[in-house]
Amino acid sequence: MNKVVIFGHKNPDTDSICSALAYADLKTQLGLSVEALRLGDINPETEFVLKHFQVEAPRLVSAVADEAKDVILVDHNERQQSASDIDAVHVTEVIDHHRIANFETSQPLYYRAEPVGCTATILRKMYFENGLSIPQPIAGLMLSAIISDTLLLKSPTCTEEDVKAVQALAEIAAVDYEEYGLQMLKAGADLGDKTALELISLDAKEFPMGTYKVEIAQVNTVDTNDVMVKQDELENVIAKVIADKELDLFVLVVTDILNSNSAALVLGRARHAVEQAYHVTLNNNTALLRGVVSRKKQVVPILTETLEKFQL
Amino acid sequence: MNKVVIFGHKNPDTDSICSALAYADLKTQLGLSVEALRLGDINPETEFVLKHFQVEAPRLVSAVADEAKDVILVDHNERQQSASDIDAVHVTEVIDHHRIANFETSQPLYYRAEPVGCTATILRKMYFENGLSIPQPIAGLMLSAIISDTLLLKSPTCTEEDVKAVQALAEIAAVDYEEYGLQMLKAGADLGDKTALELISLDAKEFPMGTYKVEIAQVNTVDTNDVMVKQDELENVIAKVIADKELDLFVLVVTDILNSNSAALVLGRARHAVEQAYHVTLNNNTALLRGVVSRKKQVVPILTETLEKFQL
Repeated sequence: MNKVVIFGHKNPDTDSICSALAYADLKTQLGLSVEALRLGDINPETEFVLKHFQVEAPRLVSAVADEAKDVILVDHNERQQSASDIDAVHVTEVIDHHRIANFETSQPLYYRAEPVGCTATILRKMYFENGLSIPQPIAGLMLSAIISDTLLLKSPTCTEEDVKAVQALAEIAAVDYEEYGLQMLKAGADLGDKTALELISLDAKEFPMGTYKVEIAQVNTVDTNDVMVKQDELENVIAKVIADKELDLFVLVVTDILNSNSAALVLGRARHAVEQAYHVTLNNNTALLRGVVSRKKQVVPILTETLEKFQL
Repeated sequence: MNKVVIFGHKNPDTDSICSALAYADLKTQLGLSVEALRLGDINPETEFVLKHFQVEAPRLVSAVADEAKDVILVDHNERQQSASDIDAVHVTEVIDHHRIANFETSQPLYYRAEPVGCTATILRKMYFENGLSIPQPIAGLMLSAIISDTLLLKSPTCTEEDVKAVQALAEIAAVDYEEYGLQMLKAGADLGDKTALELISLDAKEFPMGTYKVEIAQVNTVDTNDVMVKQDELENVIAKVIADKELDLFVLVVTDILNSNSAALVLGRARHAVEQAYHVTLNNNTALLRGVVSRKKQVVPILTETLEKFQL
């Protein structure tokens, strides 16, 4: 039996790491030969999670074609967010909760996307549908993924299903999810001695929008000033990324996880799209985006729609 | 509550019609306001099915944006196979069993594709997952869709799940599925007085493959000569379609449902791709494709792979 590998997106967040591990457990319970992989470094939040539940991180790889012929994607589908050699392998399954774009197969596959807050919420149903039980540490990982993606159930991406999943998984994992969740988010928001380049790379994703190439990075913090104080340095490294990747727009979304607002630092020739999308005026390249905490629900769709209509 | 409309692909086959009706029943049972629609004429096989189970055909529309803002696709996802104004509506769900291509959303959605023989096989699981029972006539429609797509369980697309679904649905529908299925397929294969244009339009789908534009039409018959005797007329109408749509390749697959072979009539400047893909030599534009009965599994992937490598 050929091994199948399972991985989340580049710049993996807690969902990408934990859902790869959880789905690998599910498949292993079904008797299949699988391995969870990761396409990038473990962030501080995920490090906290893995340590807390004493689970080892997936193996780090930079490409996947040497690992397996058949691969399973979790928490993403867009080619530019996936392994660099994704076109050289056969995607047999996708479990995801994002929009579908830049994804194409020549053969039928198992594709399961649901508009819920987290991939792990879908995986929880799949354990149930397959009549399997969720081991305690895996429940802890899945719980952490949902808390991370929904900012402790406060993000507009959070659905009733996510809330139910958190409650049920917290019971299996035997943790108080509110107390644990806040600790976990703070561990992720502890930007400590991060350099400007690390801050803009920690959780960055690229999206084609209309004819434009856009990168949106997000960092969580308990005080946006901790990040914005480095604005000059941030602008320098962002300008370099824009030049290197030929981006039209780079948005750094600095999210205050306690007050559920974000400060945006916006550069690139298509920067006026942000003003138009949010009815704000950029002041020294920055704007406060009130109530905005979700890249997926409150940034990507509105910028996509704006840029599809937009003429430079 | 806004109405949501549900429809299958253009040139609807039995699965596209029956799965739209079945999913509309499921959603209605869940208390939602939905309507099944169709994007084209009912073919003779589907007519036999609807008459047998005394169900009315979905309403015929040529565009969907005036019908609803939110739409659900069954049995397809590729834009060129969908409503002409698909870009003007919001696709909230897709239930399908085909490859994914030319499909893109700006927002997360419910997407469920499984590599099974028929959309109705997936819908049967969804009835179960939602704790709903399948009304007798709907079970008959779903059974018919699976028999149609799998050629009475003989196509290589047929999976164990399809077999189980057929057995369970036949019980609910109270029919002997083998006897009923053969009657149904013969009703569909009765090409009687169809014109050449009708024959190539009955079940035609367009696919971009690499940089090429390809249309693949399929007709089922109990004797391929009944169709091939009209070769001259068929070539005339195919040549016109090629010119009108600027196609690179048109393949008419004439499938012998009793012997599970197909005769192919191949025109267009990329016609040598068929020779290369199947290791055959076209003789007077035709070739016998032994054991080929499934467009999805035995035609589209191999032609896509061939054309992606192909230089004219």
